[in-house]
Amino acid sequence: MINRLCVVGVGLIGGSFALGLKQAGLVNRVVGVDHDPQNLDLALFTGLIDEAASSLEEGVQGSDCVFIAVPVGVMPEIFRQLLPLWQNEVLYTDAGSTKTDVLRALAEVHGTVPANFVAGHPIAGAETSGASAARSGLFLGRRVILTPSEHTLPWALELTKSLWEGLGARVSEMDSIRHDAVLAATSHLPHVLSFALTAMLGRHDEQQDILAYAAGGLRDFTRIAGSDPAMWRDISLANRDQILPLIEEYRVALGDVAEMIKLGDSDRLVQLFADARAARQRFIDQLDK
Amino acid sequence: MINRLCVVGVGLIGGSFALGLKQAGLVNRVVGVDHDPQNLDLALFTGLIDEAASSLEEGVQGSDCVFIAVPVGVMPEIFRQLLPLWQNEVLYTDAGSTKTDVLRALAEVHGTVPANFVAGHPIAGAETSGASAARSGLFLGRRVILTPSEHTLPWALELTKSLWEGLGARVSEMDSIRHDAVLAATSHLPHVLSFALTAMLGRHDEQQDILAYAAGGLRDFTRIAGSDPAMWRDISLANRDQILPLIEEYRVALGDVAEMIKLGDSDRLVQLFADARAARQRFIDQLDK
Repeated sequence: MINRLCVVGVGLIGGSFALGLKQAGLVNRVVGVDHDPQNLDLALFTGLIDEAASSLEEGVQGSDCVFIAVPVGVMPEIFRQLLPLWQNEVLYTDAGSTKTDVLRALAEVHGTVPANFVAGHPIAGAETSGASAARSGLFLGRRVILTPSEHTLPWALELTKSLWEGLGARVSEMDSIRHDAVLAATSHLPHVLSFALTAMLGRHDEQQDILAYAAGGLRDFTRIAGSDPAMWRDISLANRDQILPLIEEYRVALGDVAEMIKLGDSDRLVQLFADARAARQRFIDQLDK
Repeated sequence: MINRLCVVGVGLIGGSFALGLKQAGLVNRVVGVDHDPQNLDLALFTGLIDEAASSLEEGVQGSDCVFIAVPVGVMPEIFRQLLPLWQNEVLYTDAGSTKTDVLRALAEVHGTVPANFVAGHPIAGAETSGASAARSGLFLGRRVILTPSEHTLPWALELTKSLWEGLGARVSEMDSIRHDAVLAATSHLPHVLSFALTAMLGRHDEQQDILAYAAGGLRDFTRIAGSDPAMWRDISLANRDQILPLIEEYRVALGDVAEMIKLGDSDRLVQLFADARAARQRFIDQLDK
């Protein structure tokens, strides 16, 4: 049970975390901090938060948990501002989409990652963003990955876990490098591919009016290209060490497909497509579990 | 009004065409031809067709319209079998996903494309297939592209158009090369990319169990990798002249993104992602029109 929760960044993730915990009776009072006053007003008006703080200092004052849900590119600045305010008995946890760089940024500020900070990532993104998109059930059944180290304080880890589980999430633990590798493959690479394809089709469309003839398959395929450009720039740069080798691997794979098509290698082509269909089925089965 | 319609290939497309026309009162009687006796039985049992022909010859006998809805790789063989049965007063039309190669295969059999053949393509694919997936409303509001030539008989073209419009489809005409270029960009390339990515993620998953942590974005992005491998092998090979340059263009575009990420070129990256989001919005607006 949290008495006073401070949410830094009251967007889709921060707002849904606050609302869900209040509705679950796991938090008494929520104070929000946001760089966008209009977004903060909306969060207050719609009851995501009980109080809008005028500064980070005011927000964390007296809070027993600080939840940082800003884009990963903004985290270093938040960590710098939090340094003089840091309290050892408070739980600090985040929801950044990448973990190695977040921990590195925190370590740069403190000299080492403080033992009462628990790095986390709820896998529950959407094309929508901001306080207006928040809803209490966002994390129900969703995966949350925590990346503690051997220095992380057990009470901090357990409390973080219990909050996410209180929202109905399925919590896993792994090290931050594995987290970034897994997310690079299953989320970051697909986003980069979708952005690149959609931008390319946009250029063709300007010359040839092709999108009028596209069907539902393309709607699905390009959906994630509707995601926030600045957030995905941050993620791409933050996790570049994992993403770049995957882009290269994919370019090689595409070169292989092109070769099969060029040579008319019917057998290998149908085998590749069948392998893909089987992997897709495995993936769907896991999602539905 | 068609008295007797022969549908060659009673799958998703052929079955939906037959059922829709019967329900619209535009066809009196439907006879089905299929290489799969079980599928044909099912089509008869579920009322997609009124009669199951035991051969192509029996099917086309007495029909005033022959609708060919087999995978494009099978078309050449169907055209060879149809040659001795060809009747000048009958409308022949198809639903192949590529058009240039279908017309080429027909011209190879007849010496030239017969004037009573109208090449067509309903843009209404799905991951489902077979007679069991057919439904009368499949083409409602969907685009159908016809690729007639200056030799196509006006009555044949008009009749084909009126059948599709009777199913609620939106009919466009363009030349077969433009059709193949447009579809390569909006459908064939996305399918190849999705197959290649999903197969690659499947290989990573076998080593690292990554798909358990994937979210909804990947479900959408890989949906089209659930499509029929043999059908997509056929399409990839049939339209290779249009698909191969697009794969190469995409590989170059991906190389550019990788370079932006490597260099930390934040401005170009966010611009590219914003361009993609804008193109996606244009596309969605057109789909919803």
